[in-house]
Amino acid sequence: MPDTSAETIAPPAPEPAPVSAPDTAAAALARRVAAGDRRALARAITLVESTRPDHRAEAVALLAALPDRQALRIGLSGTPGVGKSTFIEAFGLMLTGQGLRVAVLAVDPSSARSGGSILGDKTRMERLSRDPAAFIRPSPSRAELGGVARRTRETVRLAEAAGYDVVLIETVGVGQSETLVAEMSDLFVLLLAPAGGDELQGVKRGIMEIADLILVNKADGELRPTALRTVADYAGALRLMRKRAGDPEGFPKALPVSAVAGDGLTAAWAEMQALTDWRRAQGVFAARRAEQAEGWFLAEVRAGLLARLAEEPAAATLRRLGAEVAAGRTDPVAAAAEMLATLG
Amino acid sequence: MPDTSAETIAPPAPEPAPVSAPDTAAAALARRVAAGDRRALARAITLVESTRPDHRAEAVALLAALPDRQALRIGLSGTPGVGKSTFIEAFGLMLTGQGLRVAVLAVDPSSARSGGSILGDKTRMERLSRDPAAFIRPSPSRAELGGVARRTRETVRLAEAAGYDVVLIETVGVGQSETLVAEMSDLFVLLLAPAGGDELQGVKRGIMEIADLILVNKADGELRPTALRTVADYAGALRLMRKRAGDPEGFPKALPVSAVAGDGLTAAWAEMQALTDWRRAQGVFAARRAEQAEGWFLAEVRAGLLARLAEEPAAATLRRLGAEVAAGRTDPVAAAAEMLATLG
Repeated sequence: MPDTSAETIAPPAPEPAPVSAPDTAAAALARRVAAGDRRALARAITLVESTRPDHRAEAVALLAALPDRQALRIGLSGTPGVGKSTFIEAFGLMLTGQGLRVAVLAVDPSSARSGGSILGDKTRMERLSRDPAAFIRPSPSRAELGGVARRTRETVRLAEAAGYDVVLIETVGVGQSETLVAEMSDLFVLLLAPAGGDELQGVKRGIMEIADLILVNKADGELRPTALRTVADYAGALRLMRKRAGDPEGFPKALPVSAVAGDGLTAAWAEMQALTDWRRAQGVFAARRAEQAEGWFLAEVRAGLLARLAEEPAAATLRRLGAEVAAGRTDPVAAAAEMLATLG
Repeated sequence: MPDTSAETIAPPAPEPAPVSAPDTAAAALARRVAAGDRRALARAITLVESTRPDHRAEAVALLAALPDRQALRIGLSGTPGVGKSTFIEAFGLMLTGQGLRVAVLAVDPSSARSGGSILGDKTRMERLSRDPAAFIRPSPSRAELGGVARRTRETVRLAEAAGYDVVLIETVGVGQSETLVAEMSDLFVLLLAPAGGDELQGVKRGIMEIADLILVNKADGELRPTALRTVADYAGALRLMRKRAGDPEGFPKALPVSAVAGDGLTAAWAEMQALTDWRRAQGVFAARRAEQAEGWFLAEVRAGLLARLAEEPAAATLRRLGAEVAAGRTDPVAAAAEMLATLG
């Protein structure tokens, strides 16, 4: 006779885990983002940009609930004065004119200090911002580049999930911002102004090395001959640089454009598409995305680990030991060893 | 009658912890460094530069065993071609001629790649390197700026403990290296070449803001008039910049020097001493050192925390999750959350 005592009765099958409130909210928001709801997208971006711990948990749940869609991610850099906003507006309108949906994100680690570009983004691209097929989001207002990069990666993912075909990630050439943007882009475009041959030296070699396409803007009116010479100069400089693995013949290229006149934009877009098609066919596109995703993961782990120093009781210990070091009662290296020991 | 059973017998008093072998070796090395033994100093620097965990433990013990001595830490930056090596040699020999002992350390995050300056440091300052009152150490051969900064701070402390009166920390203007060097210096000196007024714009504003003294080199022969004009230009630019808290009247200053002719070096040194004396009297010197020590402590904690990702089993988990992210089986943010959970 089977033993039916309490001890051996099989426990009831566990109930399905209750879906927690943030998850429900996150899933609902993810559905609205995926349905192309612009206000939901804006709200989702605000959520990923928040540093509040409860918002962060919600953001993680939101990101996990997003559908897997892919846009072409184009990184774009150019120093102030090259006509970047005018270019983005003209280029964006050309793309939406072809039936494509375009998201424009800005990475500007200096904006928190200057305050200027945060308000300026939409007004400086007035026509594009009114285009229902376009979505413009200024840079998150944080001075710290690492934080900007983290949140921008998530915003790119949100824009992709929202069904945008092209995500333009714009940056000013401040510090390492170009490298960071290149690391989250499929293509990196450098927008330059017409210049004398000597000024070619002014473009940092590192930026030339990550550019897939150099566009010399203002190739119109009186500046056109200078712009064409500048294109030739950069084309020559690019030829001298070592050919990168994963580049088809002829790339990286330099081309003239005029954002004001609308010249050269379709040609530039055709080159971007040609390069993308080639990279997709070669498997380079997917390999690059995989590498970028892994880099993102590593950056998230590092940031998450460092964030623990801001949590109590670690933060209090850090403050106490920091004060002791400042007072000269202990040396920085010994105090750091003590701090690390308390972190288990 | 007292209970004398084994359970209640008081355990024997713990023996004093045996002094571990690395500590003894570290203490011995610290004594030799403090006694001014140059070979011991060189060995100690090699030890702090090592990334081997056992070496690191020994380095921490060594640093804790050093006597507390203070040198004047002078950060020096200048782009290639301004005659930085010639200046350091002439300035260093002037100081040793006054009976001072001088250590020259280099921070060059690019040296690991170029390889050039590692071998070049001693040959480019031949006379100074033969001076028994001088000690020259090239940049640690690591590409990563954070690592270079960490080890350089420790090398500065070793040079101070070894009794050097002046520690010159030289850097090329690569990326953030100037800011890092300024953060470990009592004074920051910028060495510039004579230039037209237009080129003044080329000096990054951020560097101007951290400079205590701008020296315009090559103020000799045909270039002297240009150098004097450049000095006037920089002096004007410095006046326009907001006066910093902790600066006496007239600082930051711009002065002409000629490293080749040996002109202006004693005047430059007098200004450095005047500024230092003023800062000491105001308590600014000590406050700055305290702040720097706390910054060093925080940097050490962060670096030590991140180093845990390289230890097993964390490193293996990181590799596994990284591979899953790269393969698209999980998203970067979710994988990072999983990784952080395994880190306790």
